Amino acid sequence: MIIDCLSIFPDIVSASLGQSIVGKACDKGLLEIRQLDIRDFTTDKHHSVDDIPYGGGAGMVFKPEPVIRALKSVWRKESRVIHPSPAAPRFDQEAARLLAQEEHLIFIASRYEGLDQRVIDAWVDLEYSLGDFVITGGELATSVFIDAIVRMIPGAVGKHESVAQDSYYNGLLDYPHYTRPEELDGMRVPDVLLSGHHENIRQWRKRQSIQRTQRLRPDLLQQSELDQESLRWLGEDS
Amino acid sequence: MIIDCLSIFPDIVSASLGQSIVGKACDKGLLEIRQLDIRDFTTDKHHSVDDIPYGGGAGMVFKPEPVIRALKSVWRKESRVIHPSPAAPRFDQEAARLLAQEEHLIFIASRYEGLDQRVIDAWVDLEYSLGDFVITGGELATSVFIDAIVRMIPGAVGKHESVAQDSYYNGLLDYPHYTRPEELDGMRVPDVLLSGHHENIRQWRKRQSIQRTQRLRPDLLQQSELDQESLRWLGEDS
Repeated sequence: MIIDCLSIFPDIVSASLGQSIVGKACDKGLLEIRQLDIRDFTTDKHHSVDDIPYGGGAGMVFKPEPVIRALKSVWRKESRVIHPSPAAPRFDQEAARLLAQEEHLIFIASRYEGLDQRVIDAWVDLEYSLGDFVITGGELATSVFIDAIVRMIPGAVGKHESVAQDSYYNGLLDYPHYTRPEELDGMRVPDVLLSGHHENIRQWRKRQSIQRTQRLRPDLLQQSELDQESLRWLGEDS
Repeated sequence: MIIDCLSIFPDIVSASLGQSIVGKACDKGLLEIRQLDIRDFTTDKHHSVDDIPYGGGAGMVFKPEPVIRALKSVWRKESRVIHPSPAAPRFDQEAARLLAQEEHLIFIASRYEGLDQRVIDAWVDLEYSLGDFVITGGELATSVFIDAIVRMIPGAVGKHESVAQDSYYNGLLDYPHYTRPEELDGMRVPDVLLSGHHENIRQWRKRQSIQRTQRLRPDLLQQSELDQESLRWLGEDS
């Protein structure tokens, strides 16, 4: 897979991805990430990337031409162009899974009031929001999306790390984890985890997952198909 | 405000914040961000930060002692300790607003299977999930949360930039933006935005917001109180 990132702060995206699974996937040859600076595609002497909005109001809008020139420099017919935007559906694990199957992704990390709508209409295939909050620019959102997507490329994540994905694979929140020592400032590891009784441990963990999901994210339970065992644990105190 | 970030990859957090509002807020003296490397608080010669989980299974858990030592080195009674975790409620603009009023935040960016539950029980005040997807570590989530929080500190964001916050202030998605030229590859800016008629522009933008929210995030409409004007536009085609 090739991922092109168009932004005016390419350093943010590259710095935040270096130490992650993404860096390893690049080393393994599974992935190539290229940073394009939109400013390099301006033609005026001030290299300006933004302009005032039609209709008035505060805030600036990305000038269309430099973005389109940057896009044209890398676009091919199999490209999928993604624009992180707060005015879009939320990114989720299913989006990560689907995008991991693409050959070429192009991210446009905008700032200010965002992209001219005509650039979106003509060029952007998908828009995703990082969440229901405002951040300064699309660079961090781009980094997060890339991390989540690359984890879903077969071979990118070792067996050792892959269990971390359990959370959203099952549609339930993760159970609590414990490591040594057995007693820490008067707090003990739950006895069941020391018992060596695998079936009891499995049941305890699943029950913790169900009950935590019910307490913190009841909306997730509505979407997942629970088995009889799980249904029994709903509503119980953990 | 002081923000301490505890992680094993302090470079990720600092690199991703440099170019943002956060960097400017630090320059203005509104904010100080300190990076602590959890590895500096290990005592064994290999500086190991993780250990195997009680009860078995793949994946590693952060050793409690180095994290607690790092916490103790900065904690004071007004500190609020935050752990980005997928097993938690989602972060949102209200969380950003509330946390912006604190004097001292401590973020613990974990990796692998996360923190020992006893560290969370004894030390962590708040856990937030970035969204319903899996990423490699808590560093990117920490960067995103800090960006969103710092924007809400009075004085951190200039007037010029603050309109970008409209989206989640009103509980509606943003309307489309346009800038020069009037015609781009055959696509024209909507006539109303060129009309100079302020009331028509206001109405057009609000209607676009309502209809976009209805199309892409109908769940947001249920939470917001719509006025008569807005209710009239629901269900219309945009």
